[in-house]
Amino acid sequence: MGIIIAVDIGGTQIRVATFHRDSTKPVQVRRAATRAPEGTPFERLCNEIAAIWPKDEEVEAIVVATPGPLDPERGIVFSAPNIPGWENFPLRDELYKRFGVTTMIENDANVAALGEWYFGAGKGHHHVLYITISTGIGAGVISRDHLLQGARGLATEVGHVTVAPDGPMCNCGQQGHLEAVAAGPAIARWVTEKIARGASSSLEGRKVITAQDVAAAAAQGDELALQALARAGHFLGQALADLLHLFNPSIVIFGGGVSFSGAPLFDPLNEALREHIMDESYLQDLRITNAELGDDAGLLGGLTLALISQPRS
Amino acid sequence: MGIIIAVDIGGTQIRVATFHRDSTKPVQVRRAATRAPEGTPFERLCNEIAAIWPKDEEVEAIVVATPGPLDPERGIVFSAPNIPGWENFPLRDELYKRFGVTTMIENDANVAALGEWYFGAGKGHHHVLYITISTGIGAGVISRDHLLQGARGLATEVGHVTVAPDGPMCNCGQQGHLEAVAAGPAIARWVTEKIARGASSSLEGRKVITAQDVAAAAAQGDELALQALARAGHFLGQALADLLHLFNPSIVIFGGGVSFSGAPLFDPLNEALREHIMDESYLQDLRITNAELGDDAGLLGGLTLALISQPRS
Repeated sequence: MGIIIAVDIGGTQIRVATFHRDSTKPVQVRRAATRAPEGTPFERLCNEIAAIWPKDEEVEAIVVATPGPLDPERGIVFSAPNIPGWENFPLRDELYKRFGVTTMIENDANVAALGEWYFGAGKGHHHVLYITISTGIGAGVISRDHLLQGARGLATEVGHVTVAPDGPMCNCGQQGHLEAVAAGPAIARWVTEKIARGASSSLEGRKVITAQDVAAAAAQGDELALQALARAGHFLGQALADLLHLFNPSIVIFGGGVSFSGAPLFDPLNEALREHIMDESYLQDLRITNAELGDDAGLLGGLTLALISQPRS
Repeated sequence: MGIIIAVDIGGTQIRVATFHRDSTKPVQVRRAATRAPEGTPFERLCNEIAAIWPKDEEVEAIVVATPGPLDPERGIVFSAPNIPGWENFPLRDELYKRFGVTTMIENDANVAALGEWYFGAGKGHHHVLYITISTGIGAGVISRDHLLQGARGLATEVGHVTVAPDGPMCNCGQQGHLEAVAAGPAIARWVTEKIARGASSSLEGRKVITAQDVAAAAAQGDELALQALARAGHFLGQALADLLHLFNPSIVIFGGGVSFSGAPLFDPLNEALREHIMDESYLQDLRITNAELGDDAGLLGGLTLALISQPRS
């Protein structure tokens, strides 16, 4: 039985793991910094793969989860904001040239969705909506046991659904997108601005406020922090109604740091969802839950992609 | 070679056609009113099927396009506003009981999408977004040559995406959905209300104004009619950006009466689309076009559903 090499590329860390097909327990895991003073991210990635390469077993495939947008079919990363030099970068072919085995690349949110569907919270479901809320807002959709990719692999960019037409600018340059009002930085920025304008909060006086700080303050009953999460939850709920109307999943799985904010986020989210949903039938038997795989979703999603792409009997 | 019976149920008319697998030219077509003083819509439907039943050929399947929402897997119509008595109606099983051949039912917009993909404007594409704008706004999505249905067959209800959070009430009971600002009745209502408040227009004095009247007036340069279509086009463009971010199709096909409004609708639509799209790559090689099959989309979509569900070599 061969080895599958799963790679999870984040803005700060590259992780590489080896798996056998029949186990979710990695044989070995290695880590490297994504950016470093010397060498390129691609060189560091190759070094880690070479270092983890099994001595006496065949490698079946290398599967890479990386920030997008990217085209999985052509194997090209269009742009990856935190990875210098990856502009229209033919990552798949470059890896294939170096290692000579089947190589696949896929958007990190899509890979996490595959992992949660196959091994995590979505096990047994055929229609899964996975949403990750952290620095950005990403998603992956499994529809009738297939990952929804779109013509150029650019589907399910839920962070860029317009929820507040007159709202704040988004990182993408447009206005009022979900990511601009409900991702971690948007939540932190809203609190920071309110404090600058004189609102009182236990977070006053901090140099930098993060979404994690806001969640912690909300858990302690801080009124401003609660308002911030309620606002984000409201927009998430409004967007989720759209997404249920469009994808009609049987389970919605929330991952990413902000999804640990609990009731202060999810109560307003559920309220807004019910305000915007066209029919109760979208909510019948619908499960809304947290991701189960945590940081392992990327690596286990890579394993999943290898398993469903190259089934062996 | 057997016969496929395709049925298209509309609010006013039931159409039934027989096809051979290898031709889009129907062998025979029959029509009946959906509502009539005597009998039920289901009885009239059965009468038409019985009347068109071929004498010396085997019937392979009956495929029914009907207003939703419905569950194609269980064969149940949840509700059909214009068809009395079709509440949680097990249409598929009732037809099977009566005729004893393979029977499928599917949402009318989804069936039209299948028809346009297989035989119409979407030929050769693998990722298709079909949007129909008339009394309501419906859609069907083909993703990697598969119809996107969702867990209960309720996916791609694009008419109920929220585009104007503080906007008018939608027929579904919620606020600010696309259908409430951009479907035919919404366009007509906006003009009617403006005239009632003193706006001047060539449509003044009419008892009833339809979206078709508005399109005709706009074509003649009527300022109020142009504003009405620009407003609808703006919201359609905003929603279309969301839909491209979510489905990433290679072609968008517009059908339904309102889609014949031309530049007064589509210029503002394209402008709003560009205002809301996160990245040019969604628009590269994207074709936006009109439906080609007209009223035949439902019947030819039924034929498509039979062909892709039961391929014969």
